[in-house]
Amino acid sequence: MVGEHAVYNGKIIMQSEAVVPVTLREVQSGFYVYESLRVIQAHPVHLEDHLLRLEASAKLINLTYPFNREEIASWVHALIEVDLVENASLRIQIYGGMQPQLFITTSEILTYPESFYTEGVKTFTYEGERLLPGAKNGNLLLNYIALEEARRQGCFEALLVDSEHKILEGTRSNFFAIKDGKLFTAQDEKVLLGITRDRVIKAAKQFGLQILYEAPSVEQVLAGSYDELFISATSMAAMPVSRVNGTIVGTTFALTREICSLVRQWELED
Amino acid sequence: MVGEHAVYNGKIIMQSEAVVPVTLREVQSGFYVYESLRVIQAHPVHLEDHLLRLEASAKLINLTYPFNREEIASWVHALIEVDLVENASLRIQIYGGMQPQLFITTSEILTYPESFYTEGVKTFTYEGERLLPGAKNGNLLLNYIALEEARRQGCFEALLVDSEHKILEGTRSNFFAIKDGKLFTAQDEKVLLGITRDRVIKAAKQFGLQILYEAPSVEQVLAGSYDELFISATSMAAMPVSRVNGTIVGTTFALTREICSLVRQWELED
Repeated sequence: MVGEHAVYNGKIIMQSEAVVPVTLREVQSGFYVYESLRVIQAHPVHLEDHLLRLEASAKLINLTYPFNREEIASWVHALIEVDLVENASLRIQIYGGMQPQLFITTSEILTYPESFYTEGVKTFTYEGERLLPGAKNGNLLLNYIALEEARRQGCFEALLVDSEHKILEGTRSNFFAIKDGKLFTAQDEKVLLGITRDRVIKAAKQFGLQILYEAPSVEQVLAGSYDELFISATSMAAMPVSRVNGTIVGTTFALTREICSLVRQWELED
Repeated sequence: MVGEHAVYNGKIIMQSEAVVPVTLREVQSGFYVYESLRVIQAHPVHLEDHLLRLEASAKLINLTYPFNREEIASWVHALIEVDLVENASLRIQIYGGMQPQLFITTSEILTYPESFYTEGVKTFTYEGERLLPGAKNGNLLLNYIALEEARRQGCFEALLVDSEHKILEGTRSNFFAIKDGKLFTAQDEKVLLGITRDRVIKAAKQFGLQILYEAPSVEQVLAGSYDELFISATSMAAMPVSRVNGTIVGTTFALTREICSLVRQWELED
């Protein structure tokens, strides 16, 4: 059963025992790196990519840990087996410090209503830049606060805007815009290098789109300068955006939906 | 015994049971507020000020909790009693979310060698600004990384520098400079409003110093433009700074030490 067991430093434990002391400085400071991935038909999707990024995140924040990709992968498979997991969201989380602590946990797979993909979702802009955006780390208060504010406003996602009014990424997604055969998204060094972002870019190229690493500005977006806007994440694939700050920015999402289908197809072929 | 018990939502528990699930979004996101204070001779120093700031921090990050100052104070006293605490560092930490979780824990009191006060400490500048600096919240990765880097360089504290090259505060302290009868420190809205910072300013006024809310720049500091530099925190009171990035910036600390003594005296009179 999903969420029954967990892994702690290689050992299978009950997931209810996957806890950390509130007195530990690394816990207090969010000094951890993590990955979220999908398990589909008992297969952890793009696991190797996620483990490579986990290592890259750790390096970026100077978190050293005594684990390697092969053993973490074997623990992921062991957990999937012991809980007979078919479909799930799976999280690998490593706290740093003198005694690094690695947890692997599972939860019900995140899915969204089909209407989100046909009608698009509402979003909301929030000013703020992430610390060390290239690292998937525990510094998530900005993301948490921005997303809560978005939800209070009836939105699905908050889009983080930098000091130059550019939309860099969502709180748990990457951000894209399409216009006249071109796909726009922020430069690599300014955002989280999403595993799904990579797939989206690859899919866009297959559909003949030119890729431009320029983050769209809030002004351009609100002025309706783009044909389609969407966000991407492991759980979402490519999800169309219909509104930003209440303004309608898209109604049909032909290319977004084709990209989405291709990204989902690749998951099954992984 | 210090650290034997803890408080969880008003109940006395073993401190070893003061743990949180790694699967909880608020834990993952550092969505918490906290206070650290000193217990001296079984008395929690400046407790009311700390509880007021705790509420202010919570408000700033939209963390609502169903506790009030009076009951938190009574739990602090209960913990001090049950563990027969004489001197300790005491931490109050509240995770937000659907079911807020309040912890009170104690640890050995932080003290520093007398030589730190007579000779000053080495510091190191680190570029980075805190999110919502006025709130004492769980977004501490910048502080953690900067302090670890400082320690690797043999320094006691990292000084956080903003995009205009101003030294705003330390990773766990406020920052001050003295020159010609004037005390310089960053504006209120840019830093954590330290309980000890308040006391330092009050003490400086008593010694006839004029208070100027202007953060010193790295250039001015390294050029030796100030007579004395120091940092303040609950655990440190006022601690003189002898070096910044390897440059000697102070050797005698007459005023800093007088301010430090007065701040410590007020703790005993609380």
